[in-house]
Amino acid sequence: MDLTALRTANPEHWAKAAAIRTLTLDAVAAANSGHSGMPMGMADVATVLFEKHLKFDAANPEWPDRDRFILSAGHGSMLIYSLLYLTGSEEITLDQIKNFRQWGSKTAGHPENFLAKGIETTTGPLGQGLANSVGFAIAEASLRANFGKQLVDHYTYVIAGDGCLMEGVSQEAIALAGRQELDRLVVFWDNNNITIDGTVDMADRTDQVARFKASGWHVQEIDGHDPQAIDEAITAAKKAGKPSMIACKTHIALGSSAQDTSKGHGALTDAQLIADAKAAYGAPAGAFEVPDEVKKAWESIGTRGAAEKAAWDERLAAASAGKRTRFERVIAGEAPKRFVATIRALKKQMAESQPKVATRKSSEMVLEVINPVMTETIGGSADLTGSNNTKTADLGIFDTDNRKGRYIHYGIREHGMAAAMNGMALHGGIRPYGGTFMCFTDYARPAMRLAALMKVPTVFVMTHDSIGLGEDGPTHQPVEHLAISRATPNTFVFRPADTVETAEAWEIALTQEATPSVLSLTRQGLPTVRGEYKPKNLTAQGAYVLAEAEGKRQAILIATGSEVSIALEAREALQAEGIGTRVVSMPCMELFAQQDEAYRKRVLPAGAVRVGIEAAVRQGWDRWLLGERGREAKADFVGMDSFGSSAPAEELFEKFGITAEAVVGKVKALLA
Amino acid sequence: MDLTALRTANPEHWAKAAAIRTLTLDAVAAANSGHSGMPMGMADVATVLFEKHLKFDAANPEWPDRDRFILSAGHGSMLIYSLLYLTGSEEITLDQIKNFRQWGSKTAGHPENFLAKGIETTTGPLGQGLANSVGFAIAEASLRANFGKQLVDHYTYVIAGDGCLMEGVSQEAIALAGRQELDRLVVFWDNNNITIDGTVDMADRTDQVARFKASGWHVQEIDGHDPQAIDEAITAAKKAGKPSMIACKTHIALGSSAQDTSKGHGALTDAQLIADAKAAYGAPAGAFEVPDEVKKAWESIGTRGAAEKAAWDERLAAASAGKRTRFERVIAGEAPKRFVATIRALKKQMAESQPKVATRKSSEMVLEVINPVMTETIGGSADLTGSNNTKTADLGIFDTDNRKGRYIHYGIREHGMAAAMNGMALHGGIRPYGGTFMCFTDYARPAMRLAALMKVPTVFVMTHDSIGLGEDGPTHQPVEHLAISRATPNTFVFRPADTVETAEAWEIALTQEATPSVLSLTRQGLPTVRGEYKPKNLTAQGAYVLAEAEGKRQAILIATGSEVSIALEAREALQAEGIGTRVVSMPCMELFAQQDEAYRKRVLPAGAVRVGIEAAVRQGWDRWLLGERGREAKADFVGMDSFGSSAPAEELFEKFGITAEAVVGKVKALLA
Repeated sequence: MDLTALRTANPEHWAKAAAIRTLTLDAVAAANSGHSGMPMGMADVATVLFEKHLKFDAANPEWPDRDRFILSAGHGSMLIYSLLYLTGSEEITLDQIKNFRQWGSKTAGHPENFLAKGIETTTGPLGQGLANSVGFAIAEASLRANFGKQLVDHYTYVIAGDGCLMEGVSQEAIALAGRQELDRLVVFWDNNNITIDGTVDMADRTDQVARFKASGWHVQEIDGHDPQAIDEAITAAKKAGKPSMIACKTHIALGSSAQDTSKGHGALTDAQLIADAKAAYGAPAGAFEVPDEVKKAWESIGTRGAAEKAAWDERLAAASAGKRTRFERVIAGEAPKRFVATIRALKKQMAESQPKVATRKSSEMVLEVINPVMTETIGGSADLTGSNNTKTADLGIFDTDNRKGRYIHYGIREHGMAAAMNGMALHGGIRPYGGTFMCFTDYARPAMRLAALMKVPTVFVMTHDSIGLGEDGPTHQPVEHLAISRATPNTFVFRPADTVETAEAWEIALTQEATPSVLSLTRQGLPTVRGEYKPKNLTAQGAYVLAEAEGKRQAILIATGSEVSIALEAREALQAEGIGTRVVSMPCMELFAQQDEAYRKRVLPAGAVRVGIEAAVRQGWDRWLLGERGREAKADFVGMDSFGSSAPAEELFEKFGITAEAVVGKVKALLA
Repeated sequence: MDLTALRTANPEHWAKAAAIRTLTLDAVAAANSGHSGMPMGMADVATVLFEKHLKFDAANPEWPDRDRFILSAGHGSMLIYSLLYLTGSEEITLDQIKNFRQWGSKTAGHPENFLAKGIETTTGPLGQGLANSVGFAIAEASLRANFGKQLVDHYTYVIAGDGCLMEGVSQEAIALAGRQELDRLVVFWDNNNITIDGTVDMADRTDQVARFKASGWHVQEIDGHDPQAIDEAITAAKKAGKPSMIACKTHIALGSSAQDTSKGHGALTDAQLIADAKAAYGAPAGAFEVPDEVKKAWESIGTRGAAEKAAWDERLAAASAGKRTRFERVIAGEAPKRFVATIRALKKQMAESQPKVATRKSSEMVLEVINPVMTETIGGSADLTGSNNTKTADLGIFDTDNRKGRYIHYGIREHGMAAAMNGMALHGGIRPYGGTFMCFTDYARPAMRLAALMKVPTVFVMTHDSIGLGEDGPTHQPVEHLAISRATPNTFVFRPADTVETAEAWEIALTQEATPSVLSLTRQGLPTVRGEYKPKNLTAQGAYVLAEAEGKRQAILIATGSEVSIALEAREALQAEGIGTRVVSMPCMELFAQQDEAYRKRVLPAGAVRVGIEAAVRQGWDRWLLGERGREAKADFVGMDSFGSSAPAEELFEKFGITAEAVVGKVKALLA
């Protein structure tokens, strides 16, 4: 491609965009890995966006009212690193660029939100950024409705590639954004027609413009290398009154010999290719060299928002004390003052009234008292509102005509819901929670992993958490899903036994700053096992002695959730036979693992036989049964080792042998 | 709604459709759970399809050339059970209908493919049936190209609901089917505008017709209660030359007081409602009562295909012996005769040449010899062909102009790929395998679980299986994914250490009848650790002694995949210090768990200290370290307890302490 026309038509623009391209080429070459072509193709769009539209102040990258820039096509990470460096990020320095993809650098292979400010979300798994962005836009709309546009008034811009649009989660995101008419959401589709295997055409011939239009989006098609067209399209998109998709026809690896090829998608490291491309750009030949005037021009883009930021600071200062305090609190992610007392009052009440309810209902009871106090929550469900018990009386429905509503009908879109919740949590000011059946953890899984990796405190409300779901059968009965979430680093998996533990689990989940929580809740009714009120959050210890052995301690039963009451029943039978039996409730293995050795030893001392009870696979349990002073010859497990079946719940527990009798039998066999 | 017009316009059709409706009402009422509304809404479409179009013979439900009927909206299971019972299924009897959703019945809450013939796939998790159907249609097209339309010439019909279309996987399926112009695929969209939470409109306003059209589908919109319109639409769809979507405007729970409501989606159990609905239908009032003439009419539909089946039998008998034998073999899922010898020859060659290659490359080397022999394989990748090494020289690309091609460019659609592969396996005649990065197990997860539940031998080729992936960083580095697949019942997870083990793993995977396999393969090069050729498949034992201790056995190192060579290196260092060290390679924990106690004890005897080594989380390992005669005080693990990071692979193994030195250190500490 002859670049002369592009260079000469808009020389200043061109020089700025070329800086992105050359930094990308040099960083990828230095790392000898990475993706050169995408930043080279989208440099023009990004340059116009940052120069003319994006509201940001490089000196204040955490300004709450900044526009968000989301690189959904995360493999093109050098695009965002270049932009951050060029505009004057304190964190993404030239040294960082030179250390692209190296140990300890902030310039990881894919953008990681926790490594540098200005990276709004972690991307790389395709489609996630786009799906996050729906949450960002919802958060903005909600906060704007609640705090006024003096404080909240910004856009979310996304760059998505062909891969993002092929991933199914993109459809969930597109349809949800279209339904909610999220008019502050602008998506640039990097329409370069290239994927790793070849041209897009090999795997897809979808008319993407028609597809977005079918879900109610405003759409435009432009030349992604024409700065004026880009500028005009963004201007139109901002006024569209709907989410807006701008299809940008671009050339991947523009101006290099790998342009418009799959090779151009990957790492271009050939010295001659790089030299030739730089020459074609009219850029300096030196590695990482950006002409002073170009760097200065970029830095002035980086300070362009400073005045606006200062004016915003003044508006915040001028806001009523109540509003300002509340705004600052929710942005900081701090719980309201009354939060702990509210939880305790409910625990006390529950310990007294001892309701027999399903923990999904317990969860609703907790939310009924929390939501009015913690007004930054946004709840929702993937079309199982009545089953997940996620909606409380005060919330109102978030909708086009009610942005103050705090409950979202996500539709049958577990993945899109989870990713949108991550986006809200990343945006700040919102505490998102959302529900589905625990078995459909599977659908939400890619976003659940990212919540853990990104260190955001999203709360996943997973009800119908075992064969206790009953007649819907094995497609709807989780058996391996507790193990799946427990295997994931930085994830709290709570399986509360009753309303008291459920309240404690919610207290922990809603005060996390950097850890997502999975609440594993029953469909079936459970007795209250914590009949004695204690202000202390026992769930925070992960496991604790719920019922002590009478007489000599010969057995320890360790159980979670719905199986705690089975353990108590078994204990009664065993004690009746003179077998001293302790019951340990273990609502959160991860928190128990974090306790010191002395506490763990108090809860799980050596000597007694141990039986673990959980209506799920054993994986993850051996640490507590065979480890922690346990021994193979003195430990057993009552749970599932196959998929479930379709039948009434009580019958399933009988048939699969998850009963007090089975527990008693195992204890006796171990003691024999 | 006044049903008079419908009843009188087509009384015979009406009576047949009414039988579906009343059986549904009665079965759900008897079970006191289930979903009444969908079968009531789609009874007309199903009746016309079965009466006029579906090629099947109730007496021969496994006839390979039958049309496939897939109920993607699986909660409406009484639709398929009614159809099977009415048309004369030997398995779905009236007793089964009466035992809907009860323990041991074939009429589970959601249709389970392994419970009765005629249930082509397990559905319930929404969107899966639709995504499977793409695989069914691919299988048909492939087999038709290979065996001729005398033997293979059938359609795949799907009923999908609003939930199926909201799930992201539907987009992957729709786009893939559109791209491949799968003209034997007909999808009925049950356009009833109702989901569990309320009207579809609450969560979605997508123009579904425009959306399908955007991906190249033929589309029609009809009144789903008008038998003539249904018939004409199916006729047109079959001739469309593209996949065809028929939007059927229907009334959920037609003719009951719950019609067109969310209540109608669920279990209608009110006796008066049922009585009123039956009266409105003009159907008998008795429970499970179907008028004789109606049952007979349905049974004659069930025998409608008998002549065609007989003619097909004759054509098969008349085919050349070679063709017939091959057809019968692939339909039976049997491996070709030369298969085992081919694997052995490769193993011998590899044991001799001892290549140092990544196991993803080993996998390619295996496929290069298998694919020409086992011509029923269909390979593919989710746009990572060059990285997954799934394509071999002989395959050719499956495309609109080359249905004999055996390699599919699935696009960036891990979920759709996995579900399509399941569909091919369910169809029969095909052995599907497909690749992506192991981290993206997450995207494919819902379909991977279903492969296990459905008992189909799909092969998931998961490369880049640890931090050994390197610079792409933690979004692309699996740490919990081995645990995830191992936690799933009926799944073989193979993590081979070299080319020999990789060949053995493929041998096992491709001879399974009812178990899917996950192949966990490295990006990075590995030495051959099985330098001595043995014809026996050692991987089939799950674990085996790779290197025996010299002198007194003081330590056992247990490792998988890329960490086996680290174990061997550690052993060398330990032996040099006089510490007798055994190395156990454990390529498949599930198969090892299936071995008898005596064998397991031979491999893992008591006494020695044990260290497990795997670049992944420990979850799942304690059984082998602390159990199986192990002890907490004498066991340790070298692996990951966090997400990975972005850096060159060698550096990551150093930084995360997965090295021979670390192993040596742990062994010595345990022995001290």
